[in-house]
Amino acid sequence: MAQLDWSDLDNKAVDTARVLAADAVEKVGNGHPGTAMSLAPAAYLLWNKVMRRDPLDDQWIGRDRFILSVGHSSLTQYVQLYLNGYGLELDDLKALRTWGSLTPGHPEYGHTKGVEITTGPLGQGLASAVGFAYASRFERGLFDPNAAPGTSPFDHFVYVIAGDGDLQEGVTAEASSLAGHQQLGNLIAIYDSNQISIEDDTTIAFTEDVAKRYESYDWHVQTVDWKKTGVYVEDVAALNDAIQAAKAVTDKPSLIILKTIIGWPSPKKQNTGKIHGSALGADELKGLKEVLGFDPEKSFQVADEVIEHTRKAVAKGAAERAEWQKSFDEWAAANPENKKLLDRLEAGQLPDGVEAALPVFEGGTEVSTRAASGKVLNALGPVIPELWGGSADLAESNNTTLEGAKSFVPAQWSTHEWTGDNYGRVLHFGIREHAMGAILNGIALHGKTRAYGGTFLIFSDYMRPAVRLAALMKVPSIFVWTHDSVALGEDGPTHQPIEQLATLRAIPELDVVRPADANEVAYAWKTILERRNGPAGIALTRQNIPVFTRGEGVASGDTFAHARETAKGAYILVDAANGKPDVIFIATGSEVQLAVAAREQLASEGIHARVVSVPCLEWFYEQTAAYQESVLPSVVKARVSIEAGLSLTWDKIVGSTGRSVSIEHFGASADYKTLFTKFGITTEAAVQAAKETLAAQK
Amino acid sequence: MAQLDWSDLDNKAVDTARVLAADAVEKVGNGHPGTAMSLAPAAYLLWNKVMRRDPLDDQWIGRDRFILSVGHSSLTQYVQLYLNGYGLELDDLKALRTWGSLTPGHPEYGHTKGVEITTGPLGQGLASAVGFAYASRFERGLFDPNAAPGTSPFDHFVYVIAGDGDLQEGVTAEASSLAGHQQLGNLIAIYDSNQISIEDDTTIAFTEDVAKRYESYDWHVQTVDWKKTGVYVEDVAALNDAIQAAKAVTDKPSLIILKTIIGWPSPKKQNTGKIHGSALGADELKGLKEVLGFDPEKSFQVADEVIEHTRKAVAKGAAERAEWQKSFDEWAAANPENKKLLDRLEAGQLPDGVEAALPVFEGGTEVSTRAASGKVLNALGPVIPELWGGSADLAESNNTTLEGAKSFVPAQWSTHEWTGDNYGRVLHFGIREHAMGAILNGIALHGKTRAYGGTFLIFSDYMRPAVRLAALMKVPSIFVWTHDSVALGEDGPTHQPIEQLATLRAIPELDVVRPADANEVAYAWKTILERRNGPAGIALTRQNIPVFTRGEGVASGDTFAHARETAKGAYILVDAANGKPDVIFIATGSEVQLAVAAREQLASEGIHARVVSVPCLEWFYEQTAAYQESVLPSVVKARVSIEAGLSLTWDKIVGSTGRSVSIEHFGASADYKTLFTKFGITTEAAVQAAKETLAAQK
Repeated sequence: MAQLDWSDLDNKAVDTARVLAADAVEKVGNGHPGTAMSLAPAAYLLWNKVMRRDPLDDQWIGRDRFILSVGHSSLTQYVQLYLNGYGLELDDLKALRTWGSLTPGHPEYGHTKGVEITTGPLGQGLASAVGFAYASRFERGLFDPNAAPGTSPFDHFVYVIAGDGDLQEGVTAEASSLAGHQQLGNLIAIYDSNQISIEDDTTIAFTEDVAKRYESYDWHVQTVDWKKTGVYVEDVAALNDAIQAAKAVTDKPSLIILKTIIGWPSPKKQNTGKIHGSALGADELKGLKEVLGFDPEKSFQVADEVIEHTRKAVAKGAAERAEWQKSFDEWAAANPENKKLLDRLEAGQLPDGVEAALPVFEGGTEVSTRAASGKVLNALGPVIPELWGGSADLAESNNTTLEGAKSFVPAQWSTHEWTGDNYGRVLHFGIREHAMGAILNGIALHGKTRAYGGTFLIFSDYMRPAVRLAALMKVPSIFVWTHDSVALGEDGPTHQPIEQLATLRAIPELDVVRPADANEVAYAWKTILERRNGPAGIALTRQNIPVFTRGEGVASGDTFAHARETAKGAYILVDAANGKPDVIFIATGSEVQLAVAAREQLASEGIHARVVSVPCLEWFYEQTAAYQESVLPSVVKARVSIEAGLSLTWDKIVGSTGRSVSIEHFGASADYKTLFTKFGITTEAAVQAAKETLAAQK
Repeated sequence: MAQLDWSDLDNKAVDTARVLAADAVEKVGNGHPGTAMSLAPAAYLLWNKVMRRDPLDDQWIGRDRFILSVGHSSLTQYVQLYLNGYGLELDDLKALRTWGSLTPGHPEYGHTKGVEITTGPLGQGLASAVGFAYASRFERGLFDPNAAPGTSPFDHFVYVIAGDGDLQEGVTAEASSLAGHQQLGNLIAIYDSNQISIEDDTTIAFTEDVAKRYESYDWHVQTVDWKKTGVYVEDVAALNDAIQAAKAVTDKPSLIILKTIIGWPSPKKQNTGKIHGSALGADELKGLKEVLGFDPEKSFQVADEVIEHTRKAVAKGAAERAEWQKSFDEWAAANPENKKLLDRLEAGQLPDGVEAALPVFEGGTEVSTRAASGKVLNALGPVIPELWGGSADLAESNNTTLEGAKSFVPAQWSTHEWTGDNYGRVLHFGIREHAMGAILNGIALHGKTRAYGGTFLIFSDYMRPAVRLAALMKVPSIFVWTHDSVALGEDGPTHQPIEQLATLRAIPELDVVRPADANEVAYAWKTILERRNGPAGIALTRQNIPVFTRGEGVASGDTFAHARETAKGAYILVDAANGKPDVIFIATGSEVQLAVAAREQLASEGIHARVVSVPCLEWFYEQTAAYQESVLPSVVKARVSIEAGLSLTWDKIVGSTGRSVSIEHFGASADYKTLFTKFGITTEAAVQAAKETLAAQK
């Protein structure tokens, strides 16, 4: 076991971290000082002693990853980023939780260097950490599959600091069960068991045996109790020993239950709910400084010898990196093809040949878009090795399986249907949609592979906090949501999405993609994979729908546009035959066919209708104003939206004199044709709505 | 231990249940036969032998409750409702999963007699069952607190059948931890461990030690393994013994892990993923019937002797009920006050004096609506004994605590902040929003008490599946969502709702209530408590906002309307001074003050503005068309909505020439005044928008 090198200066650095945390919260007047104070020894141990990181390059792929699942304790991380030379300075700490600062209330990915993930909504950090560990194994399989354990430049650890809230949230229960199942030996979570949350002593709501629970998930569980002697002793060496032991267990994730006193050594407020989420107040802050031998009259004190000492982390990181670079260069020399793959991924590029690989679906046939999606994924699988994914126990329904690929589970969990392999490409989340979302985020954050996960559209509700966090972080997680309307039929209202498309589109920065036919599915996937600036969800039908017969270019006369127009988000699928629409149908997915049929019927009555397919409104709004105007000319106010769900998304687009063919109530259990008839999702309704909006123009 | 009375006819009834399930799925062509077949013995045991229920009255308050958490296996319940005389007949089973039938794909509360809860979204049933058990204890405390254990007419059991999916979902992890903590001795869950889900053998994704996990939650765990001998033996007596043992353990919830073979004894498809969710097919169905000694050429066969035998449940239920009635009458005679309370609750009425008890907040002061809510709750607490509630570890932030009341936890979990009592009124959910939602639903379903649960509005995302299910069931769960805009400030974008108000309003049948000042809060609570036809969520500010000085009636001149107008959902808070508005402001919550200020400023420029406060759009849409027109006259198309979140809700209401003062992007970490300025949520923006919409009318 590695001997811990720990001096008085390290103790002083830890105390400095505590005082800085308390000072920063005091200055802004609000925040969470308690955990940052009592976790300072653990955080400093990780950042200064344990982790292999390069303060000068937070993108170094060889780095150990750090996830602060207790995001409210952002100072735990900010102070270490300052002490260890990651770019934050004292002024940044002084600007805590103020407009434009590098130190917002919760750590924000892409905003502050050294922050690997945005945290704050409890449980998300620990759950996504499982995804980090998934990704590290999968990436090793892509780049360096044959290296002996621990010898690859792609081997590293994922460290998490989690708290009582993280352990209570269901998303971590789901993810932790998967982590044990997956035997993620490089995942090490320190659970700060301080027994205090906002309602004070957690005994009021949380008396389960956490150690036993994590053992039931097949984790390696250790307890480091700094209270065990009756006197509080921050036994850093014991914690370090536990971390080293955790590192040595390579076939299980590790939970280290660290029993601490929140806010220690604040004289009066330690071990209270108050210190969790409020400033100490002037008197208590002075008391703290006195206890720690700091000048009670000064703020943000950092002794020169302390910062000099802690910033040796920069040189240490450089040395570790140089060491790593040797093994990396050796690997690169020995594996030129894999190095090319890595370079391509790091550049965020797709391989050549993606468009050529796309299947072409014959016009005039019928296919569900989920089946088309399965075909597209299987066509792209051989071309795009970084593409992997699966489902939350709905593989066959979601059509998410890459046929012939092995499953990403230890071989011992192979079943008669699936063959497990640590480097497999098929993901099995079990019936755990929320963890799936968080794990996909972790995968997207860890590296540049592209992972997707499927469930029914209705169950996007179960994963919504993770979807929102992906959008907030702008990471390119991919969600596959099939059975995307009441047309899923007999399963009834509990399974039928009504408000889901509208409410998902309401999440800023999330691309909601709903292709109108199989060929739109192909280009939708291509576009999703080309983009890396945020998450996308693709909504797919259960039922068969027509494949449109299309031309080679844009729509013209009675000729339908080519499906590559999908990338523009909305496009004229088929125009008024004379190019001068009296009325515009705006439709998505399985309802586009109704618009097409209504257009024909109206044409027979001398009314000229345009059909606009809107596979992705967010992509459309990125187009030029001129393009948008060309698709939806502002002079044409006779507009009808058609979508088998709420009209909400379309209210603004169809405007006061427009109409919507929609469903504004819960569904019912019956076959889908009956439901569409009963709920008025029909060609007749579309024709009627068109006539109404035309009449409303007068 | 009660001796099990089990005859050959019982075996025949079980086999009949299997064949009916397979026939019903075969007829409609889709559904889930497998579990209904293999669980038939367990279901029959519960419905015919174990549970105390009256088939002729599914509202009998003394009944044992039954929750089919595996909602997809609805036939498990439908067939028992048929066999045991609850009102379903063979024709209902033949109409499975078709339009208008009493046998939809998943059991629907309020639709089919004997169904206690709508299930299907996995985990919700088991999680809400915990709420049923909470409610039974709380109600006992209200009505019959001093009865010895097991002797009260309010004592009964809550039985659950759960499956692999339920056990994997995080919501049940949260709720099960609480159930153990709460020592819910009357909760008995049978976990159908058949090791098969849609992706076939669950080993591919689910290898944790479930028994150990539930022991870690402090449940009483038993395993009944029908496969243990190597030959599959449906040892009903062993299961009955386990149930009796579970009933005898009164201080822990019980999990009975029942190891079954899904689809048994289907000759070729038993123990496969196929039989989980598809019809057997003609050949396999014949094979099943042959194995069970049924005529393979006939469908829906029920021997007269079988139905005669099973329907003895009606007489048995009547006898049990008569027995119970004695103890109930004794209780009623001895406890006339409590009986009056029960009668009032059963009638769905509030006590007298609610309006009189409402606090009146003085105009011209400032108070956050969350603080006002806390005051209202504490004013109502003494008047309304059936009111109870708490928070997901944010009690002080959500202002949800009934001061002086004890906490609803066993006394042994008292802390220095809270005093526990099995009959307490203050709920502590820990950091488990999703379980909170499901438990509140269970409480609302169980009886007529009114429970509420609080968290930040942003975390409504964590509980969304439970909120939606409440709406689908139309049960009056109450959700308290504070910190209802970016004005929560420094915690930043992870905690700041943007799309939440709009996306919650998008859930059909959910009342989203956002009061504009403290007095609206009072009437909002009154209205929520008066209504019992669906769930409500109340959105409340963190920050102080003005209390408007109001008149005694409707708005007139410069006089503001009385806050009792809140019950109408939207009302003229203050009209154009001349009663003829040029422009209408439509605002909610903390943004109404901006509309009021903008109205004044516009008045000084000769523009007449009306301010409409919209505490609840859903209530407004229930008003007469004439009232709605009086508030928002269709001729006034110059309209401005103001809400510190997406404009989405208001797009339709303000129309093509209206404007919205809104936030269409994620928030940021800073003090709220800075955020409102930076994001344009200001009086100036409201004035500007008013002028723009007025200009657009020309």
